[in-house]
Amino acid sequence: MSWLDQVAWNPEGLVPAVAQDAASGEVLMVAWMNRDSLARTVETGEATYWSRSRKALWKKGETSGHVQRVREVRLDCDGDTLVLQVESVGGVACHTGRRRCFFNLLEGDGGTRRWVATDPVLEAPTGDG
Amino acid sequence: MSWLDQVAWNPEGLVPAVAQDAASGEVLMVAWMNRDSLARTVETGEATYWSRSRKALWKKGETSGHVQRVREVRLDCDGDTLVLQVESVGGVACHTGRRRCFFNLLEGDGGTRRWVATDPVLEAPTGDG
Repeated sequence: MSWLDQVAWNPEGLVPAVAQDAASGEVLMVAWMNRDSLARTVETGEATYWSRSRKALWKKGETSGHVQRVREVRLDCDGDTLVLQVESVGGVACHTGRRRCFFNLLEGDGGTRRWVATDPVLEAPTGDG
Repeated sequence: MSWLDQVAWNPEGLVPAVAQDAASGEVLMVAWMNRDSLARTVETGEATYWSRSRKALWKKGETSGHVQRVREVRLDCDGDTLVLQVESVGGVACHTGRRRCFFNLLEGDGGTRRWVATDPVLEAPTGDG
């Protein structure tokens, strides 16, 4: 059985993939992979995801240049989620021009709870991320 | 609009939640949350997920004691994924008795690629994780 067959793809043939900065440990983004995107990611050493909205392979950084060089790929206990250790070239993983997609921090208590953007925009937003 | 309404719940009312060890930065597990589980997590300060297999709220560590004390909750750019910074009480987040669920590392090249379990089992497996 191929290592690709050991992944527990969901009914749409996808699994979530967490991209973590190999240097800082920050979680940069979570995207989806299908079998083909995972195979390409491993063969090329650069992250390729599956865009659910465009229904197409999505080579990270193809237009922005912010590719993700993959240092390590891990699969979880039930085989349905991946974690990639990546080098985030250019230091911008989010299409909003921020370092990471998880820039909204939950702050406050009770009725004052709100999401607050904590990270600066480092460059002009792109469609690509 | 409530902070809970700003989450882009999927058609099943769920979003993936990445639990990251607040001390080590390790990604411990990825599970699902619905609106109620996220509200409880924030109110109680301990992670409660949604079990898709049991179709029920799943208070992490309820039977094992390995609760996750939540230090921070973040939402991504398009609002459909959460990252929690947690203290993993007891140091075991995986139902297999390991520190984290992502113990399968992809090793080898070409035809020799395979998933290799890299992390030791620290205690007897539980159903609860």
